[in-house]
Amino acid sequence: MKKNAFYAQSGGVTSVINASAGALILEAKKHKELIGKVYAGKNGILGALREELIDTSKESRSAIESLKNRPGGAFGSCRFKLKGLDTDRKEYERLIEVFKAHNIGYFFYNGGNDSADTAYKVSQISEQLNYPIKCIAIPKTVDNDLALTDSCPGFGSAAKYIATSTLEASLDTKSMCESSTKVFILEVMGRHAGWMAASSALARIEKEDPPHIILMPEVDFNQKVFLSSVKQCVKENGFCVVVASEGIKNSKGKFLAESDTKDAFGHAQLGGVAPYLAGLISEKLKLKIHWAVSDYLQRSARHISSKTDLLQAEAVGVHAIKYAVKGMNGVMPIIVRGKGKKYTWKIEPAPLSKIANVEKKLPKSFITKNGMDVTAKAINYLAPLIEGEAFPPFKNGIPKIEKLKLIEVKKKLAKWR
Amino acid sequence: MKKNAFYAQSGGVTSVINASAGALILEAKKHKELIGKVYAGKNGILGALREELIDTSKESRSAIESLKNRPGGAFGSCRFKLKGLDTDRKEYERLIEVFKAHNIGYFFYNGGNDSADTAYKVSQISEQLNYPIKCIAIPKTVDNDLALTDSCPGFGSAAKYIATSTLEASLDTKSMCESSTKVFILEVMGRHAGWMAASSALARIEKEDPPHIILMPEVDFNQKVFLSSVKQCVKENGFCVVVASEGIKNSKGKFLAESDTKDAFGHAQLGGVAPYLAGLISEKLKLKIHWAVSDYLQRSARHISSKTDLLQAEAVGVHAIKYAVKGMNGVMPIIVRGKGKKYTWKIEPAPLSKIANVEKKLPKSFITKNGMDVTAKAINYLAPLIEGEAFPPFKNGIPKIEKLKLIEVKKKLAKWR
Repeated sequence: MKKNAFYAQSGGVTSVINASAGALILEAKKHKELIGKVYAGKNGILGALREELIDTSKESRSAIESLKNRPGGAFGSCRFKLKGLDTDRKEYERLIEVFKAHNIGYFFYNGGNDSADTAYKVSQISEQLNYPIKCIAIPKTVDNDLALTDSCPGFGSAAKYIATSTLEASLDTKSMCESSTKVFILEVMGRHAGWMAASSALARIEKEDPPHIILMPEVDFNQKVFLSSVKQCVKENGFCVVVASEGIKNSKGKFLAESDTKDAFGHAQLGGVAPYLAGLISEKLKLKIHWAVSDYLQRSARHISSKTDLLQAEAVGVHAIKYAVKGMNGVMPIIVRGKGKKYTWKIEPAPLSKIANVEKKLPKSFITKNGMDVTAKAINYLAPLIEGEAFPPFKNGIPKIEKLKLIEVKKKLAKWR
Repeated sequence: MKKNAFYAQSGGVTSVINASAGALILEAKKHKELIGKVYAGKNGILGALREELIDTSKESRSAIESLKNRPGGAFGSCRFKLKGLDTDRKEYERLIEVFKAHNIGYFFYNGGNDSADTAYKVSQISEQLNYPIKCIAIPKTVDNDLALTDSCPGFGSAAKYIATSTLEASLDTKSMCESSTKVFILEVMGRHAGWMAASSALARIEKEDPPHIILMPEVDFNQKVFLSSVKQCVKENGFCVVVASEGIKNSKGKFLAESDTKDAFGHAQLGGVAPYLAGLISEKLKLKIHWAVSDYLQRSARHISSKTDLLQAEAVGVHAIKYAVKGMNGVMPIIVRGKGKKYTWKIEPAPLSKIANVEKKLPKSFITKNGMDVTAKAINYLAPLIEGEAFPPFKNGIPKIEKLKLIEVKKKLAKWR
């Protein structure tokens, strides 16, 4: 029974989310007996609700293949969370209406925690609203905070960007510290989990190399200890490199850089930890300081993606199709690490019920006793994820971005809302 | 008459300053009849004053060759400006003392405007203090603001980083703008000249692509026009990408992000234009905004250096030696662009007297009438400078940095100061 597929990107994008999309679309072509067309939602699930469906079959094969080199979300992503089936039944009914109108029997949702929750709810449509759908969530998040999977596609590349940037900026700072900047702070993403900040430790070649201080949201910020550590570090090394998660909090649980705005998921919108810490150091220690905030650069830096991460992003896209054609529903292809000393990985299905809304923080065993560095165990976990380079093709000095047609399917239904 | 050479790095470092150093050291080895050892100043000219001379002959050939892959200043740089010969004669006498003690007859100074000034003063030692020295300044600055030379080694790589980052972050912002961030701001370096901000225009594939607004120090910031442009841009495109120089000023000539601290050259230390503009947009336009400050990342990003820039950095290092062994003094090897349509370049000597302390800003013909973009003429100038990739070797997922011995020559003199 041949059905069309719906694929959507959700939440914050990564440098390899389109690699998952491209691999999924190419894999779907191998199952023509079961999967018809792959429609991509324009701006994520909003595309399904609005009946804005991009017909990926209109794209050339080379365009689909080039998706693996393209950062951002090629079809548009969104921050939009479906409420429960009981509280917001109308939206689910609309989804079914669109699915029916376009003969959609497969739902692929490429996102993080919140998206796994949405996918889980959609997977329940089959039973509760009696519409047959195979729903597969595809992992993606630079935050690396999804449960069950060993790592999350997108994270390895962000980690490689952070480790590389920390290494490069540290060499810069070191060479100037005698008569200029003594402290350099790099602010990285990570609202509640310090995976990205932790990955800066991979910049070290020798154990005592920078970064000297890593601030993670899992540890309450202690101003006094922090300042004395910076002071001591400058005394010992001549300079100090600090990597700080955007989400570090004080002992009262307040974000150091809290602003008043909130995103569509209700999370406080952050940014500005680096200038906050810079002000503190400048004022209390009178040290010359420079700071950088990598923000979107770190999650979109396809030019420095990890090859391991890229291959995993493609593999979860491929397996999403494999699971769907096997008739699975409500699962996510996750990355499972081999037990051996040499890093190996494979993809296995895991139930969305155990992934939705669970946030995986840094384990205590990954954080040093002083709370400002990571352990050898953390390094062992992180190191293989940034292995390998996967430079995109360049044209005119910048990464080559192939143009997509993004042709929408003709609408059949009345406007949503 | 064989003499040793002194080489020093000065001012803010770049991702390719060590490429100049490596090329210079290797070229010197070809002139053994005239040049003995190349001593590198530890922390720039401070190394000469303090008699802290790194003996580069102790490094392996592969270590010297690997310098081209290493960002930062391998021997340490400094912010230290020599005053005039008349006002600060003692420092020049100390230099001569050190030069004499170590049989130094060549002085190579790798830096920007201020450093060209220092080199110019040192070049006068020959005549005024009767110590024979061949003094050659080697251009280096991400600011691209040196006079006479068509471009400055270091700039092309920073420009490539900025263009690539702008492209990647723009794809990210575009894919999320429907339900999330509408405005993305990237703050780049550039105190008085907008070359780096201008280079973000190279991120465009089609003419209407982001960045939508480029703010350069050459144009007074007009809050009203800026805000209405952002508003209009979001209305038309759904999102707006702004690239802003750290050095933009209001109509009263005050830096938007002025802080109270000053560096050793007396320049105000900047940073924070992006959060300033973000606050403005958030408050006045109520648009969701993200911002990044690339700071040291942009000038140390050897992983995304321009091949053209790298080759030019090596060429000026090679020519510095060529000029010195020809007996030239008080010159700088500059980059001269060919007249043809296809980009070509060669190296020629230029007098330091015409370079020292002159700051080359963006010409008016490079800035559009509205003051918030660059012209086709600017693009034609900038485009070839970011051409070509020169990825460094990687090890364990990060750029491979070879260890240097950095062995200092035995001191022969009393301590300085």
